Amino acid sequence: MPRGRFITLEGGEGAGKSTQARLLEAALRAAGHPVLRTREPGGTPGAEAIRGLLLGQGPYQGPWDGVTEGLLHFAARREHVVRCIRPALDAGTWVVCDRFLDSTLAYQVFGQGLSRSAFDSLAGITLEGLRPDLTLVLDIGPAEGLARAAARGETNRYEALDPDFHARVRAGFRAIAAAEPERCALVDATAAPEGVAAEILRLVRGRLAP
Amino acid sequence: MPRGRFITLEGGEGAGKSTQARLLEAALRAAGHPVLRTREPGGTPGAEAIRGLLLGQGPYQGPWDGVTEGLLHFAARREHVVRCIRPALDAGTWVVCDRFLDSTLAYQVFGQGLSRSAFDSLAGITLEGLRPDLTLVLDIGPAEGLARAAARGETNRYEALDPDFHARVRAGFRAIAAAEPERCALVDATAAPEGVAAEILRLVRGRLAP
Repeated sequence: MPRGRFITLEGGEGAGKSTQARLLEAALRAAGHPVLRTREPGGTPGAEAIRGLLLGQGPYQGPWDGVTEGLLHFAARREHVVRCIRPALDAGTWVVCDRFLDSTLAYQVFGQGLSRSAFDSLAGITLEGLRPDLTLVLDIGPAEGLARAAARGETNRYEALDPDFHARVRAGFRAIAAAEPERCALVDATAAPEGVAAEILRLVRGRLAP
Repeated sequence: MPRGRFITLEGGEGAGKSTQARLLEAALRAAGHPVLRTREPGGTPGAEAIRGLLLGQGPYQGPWDGVTEGLLHFAARREHVVRCIRPALDAGTWVVCDRFLDSTLAYQVFGQGLSRSAFDSLAGITLEGLRPDLTLVLDIGPAEGLARAAARGETNRYEALDPDFHARVRAGFRAIAAAEPERCALVDATAAPEGVAAEILRLVRGRLAP
């Protein structure tokens, strides 16, 4: 049985990652692939419990120290990878994940000042070499993305942060896409959802030949 | 203002760490020192929330993957160090901590198979060089320690693990004490509490001249 392929969707607030993950799942299923659509932080009961801590839904509402936040994100990711993503890929299932490693790099390293060397160490400990086969970086200006998220009635603790933070996160995502062009593709997320979905499917077909 | 001194108490289940931490706190206060007595995992609201996850008191009862467990312990430790231990030491307060870094080394590395290199990386990221000035390793055979803990009506998820696990943990603590004799002292914990307390005070006076 061939191993499944691992596709991640990344980008700032309001970039349309969740919508595009659903549309991509449907297209891959239509092409005959078993698909697991999941998200981070979360995706397993343990990881969701850690997500609750990160989102301030537990007995402590934060704020967390930046290094602590990185450790918690990687703890949730470890559960997700070991109990969900790797077994699915090994069973031939394609995995479509809404946020993954690059979100921690963009938000915690570019955005909040976790050191790059700490990030690299934590990625090594947690992932033991696992990387996405394809990462779609949905690119949108922070002002437009935040306005979209607000129009959906969504708010989270990142959206309240200052504009400079969101500018650093966007620059981070663009830098990631530029640094790893074989793994990543930058997608213009300002178009209508159907147009973005068509571009994503073109990229998936071209890179992964599903 | 001179920096406070950082003393940790380590050892397996039923070694008497909490009792000795209280007695040491009282002796240091009697000598005129401001003292913060604390414990791990925990010691701050955020770290206590993570402790709740580790102890299965949240929405997920476990088990955690071994690497996840290591990441969660270091996340709790980071909060504790940044918000509690370092500020106290900087303010001239002596810190007496019931379990610290060596418990993760003994339980997760010696006991459960977290890699030593992962442990060393996590310690570097989390502590940025902070180490105890003195670590008292309370040594007791696992059978006697577990019987003591059971007699107190205390049980935790470690106590249910097999005897081999507790033997590895004890061997781990003894190896730590042997490897770092300038920082650590091995204390016979089978004696009466008053005798152990007297030995600890002798060590503290000899090593730290309080």
